[in-house]
Amino acid sequence: MSVLIVGSTALDSIKTPKVENPCLLGGSASHAAVAASFFSPVKLVGVVGKDFPKKYLQLYHRHKIDLAGLQILPGKTFHWSGEYEVNMNNRRTLLTELGVFETFTPTLPESHRDAKFVLLANIAPSLQHHVLDQMRHPKFVVADTMDLWLNIALPDLLKLLKRIDGFVLNDSEAHQLTKEDNVFGAMKKIHKLGPKYVVIKKGSHGSILSGPRGYFICPAYPLSRVVDPTGAGDSFVGGMMGWLAAARGSIDDNFRRGMVHGSVVASFCCEGFGLTQTAKTRRAQIDRRVKELEKLTRF
Amino acid sequence: MSVLIVGSTALDSIKTPKVENPCLLGGSASHAAVAASFFSPVKLVGVVGKDFPKKYLQLYHRHKIDLAGLQILPGKTFHWSGEYEVNMNNRRTLLTELGVFETFTPTLPESHRDAKFVLLANIAPSLQHHVLDQMRHPKFVVADTMDLWLNIALPDLLKLLKRIDGFVLNDSEAHQLTKEDNVFGAMKKIHKLGPKYVVIKKGSHGSILSGPRGYFICPAYPLSRVVDPTGAGDSFVGGMMGWLAAARGSIDDNFRRGMVHGSVVASFCCEGFGLTQTAKTRRAQIDRRVKELEKLTRF
Repeated sequence: MSVLIVGSTALDSIKTPKVENPCLLGGSASHAAVAASFFSPVKLVGVVGKDFPKKYLQLYHRHKIDLAGLQILPGKTFHWSGEYEVNMNNRRTLLTELGVFETFTPTLPESHRDAKFVLLANIAPSLQHHVLDQMRHPKFVVADTMDLWLNIALPDLLKLLKRIDGFVLNDSEAHQLTKEDNVFGAMKKIHKLGPKYVVIKKGSHGSILSGPRGYFICPAYPLSRVVDPTGAGDSFVGGMMGWLAAARGSIDDNFRRGMVHGSVVASFCCEGFGLTQTAKTRRAQIDRRVKELEKLTRF
Repeated sequence: MSVLIVGSTALDSIKTPKVENPCLLGGSASHAAVAASFFSPVKLVGVVGKDFPKKYLQLYHRHKIDLAGLQILPGKTFHWSGEYEVNMNNRRTLLTELGVFETFTPTLPESHRDAKFVLLANIAPSLQHHVLDQMRHPKFVVADTMDLWLNIALPDLLKLLKRIDGFVLNDSEAHQLTKEDNVFGAMKKIHKLGPKYVVIKKGSHGSILSGPRGYFICPAYPLSRVVDPTGAGDSFVGGMMGWLAAARGSIDDNFRRGMVHGSVVASFCCEGFGLTQTAKTRRAQIDRRVKELEKLTRF
């Protein structure tokens, strides 16, 4: 089955202690869509400006991503610029130019409204609502978010939590949302806000699922060199949703392996700037790392 | 087989945001010895003062810990006092009174020199050397350490790394030792300093082994409430060594399960102040959590 993915489509300028890369393809939906495309057909919903490089549209095409829901509007593409510290864990935003994103309304083509798997990648909760309003009978809806929306759009986000099946966020966001330091305590509180599946991302420490079958401790693939972690969280959730949409059987049966596949796609994402490494990756490489993770966690 | 454990034997006063507990049984060797005792006979090597409460000697006795190597000297027992922040991750030392520990020389009884499994729990590297000097043919030697020794006794510690089989340290200590931010990069550098097995502890994120069979990602048992993490790292390494000393087969075959058993004993340690919860734990409870961890990590 195909996955509908809405989120940001951006040009990222990323500075790390060693190098600076201007105008990389970025945004939550770009990372999630390419990640999901390894496993399922993807329908991308987003907006870019007239300045959006053709090579990036070609990149989407190469991954067979359906662009009927990608609006190309007069004006500039959303541009994010950020800088990483030496340890690659702390990031600070240098610049955000919304461009065409400022007035973006994600109107879905008729062909998109019957999608069964919906990923509301990181974007304003009001836009995530707007997409859900247009869907007919989605089977499985997952949302991601970021600290910004917890700060400026909390009521919208809380309403969204009552409409989705799964919620994915990182550990500091979980703390911000619940005021609970303990990650398992935080997950309990988030369940009470609505979602049946809660996934907390912990970067290089992996991720944790709390769902109907209890907890799952999902490993991160061991990388001895991280080039650029931007988009790793989006790749994780995108890969997870792509895998779930493709898998036979129940969501409950498949959720753990979905997370592991997302985790592996995220590991490739970290090995290059922006989407450069992810875009070069082949399915066989992903399957190999999933097998390795099986061996690295058995005891 | 029995495990010889040398380290500190102390009285700990621990303050958390909710409560203060004076004069708990503590010290790296106390935690490690009780943890190891679930699996193997233990020979404890340490020193206490005349003020050392009888109830703590009885606690050691209940765990069948051989105290022939525990010196009881005129003077005061080593006393450590510390405080935890709200999130239980950051600890600061309020007070350290060395007492009889200041002039401690760990002289081994004749009966101890043939022990095959040796755990040099956290203590000055010069004392760890002194114990090794007295051993005849140890089969498997593991050392733990702390940031203090990296700061004030680095040459001694580096010499020790050439004499041991396994080295256990936490992620910030690994960074301090190698100047390497990436944990897998740090482990590669530590292997070059001597140890065949390198274990990095990451608190609630679990631990990682780098050994002859590659990496192992060891989970932490999910706890939704941590009462006091003091001694969790010592319990982990103690439990691991106790399990290894008891297991049949090669160290390589057993190392992963040893770590998981250590991780589970550490989880009990975190559920009470000092050793209170660990001392109440039964072997069957440990085995149950190990089985749970197997289920929580399978995919």
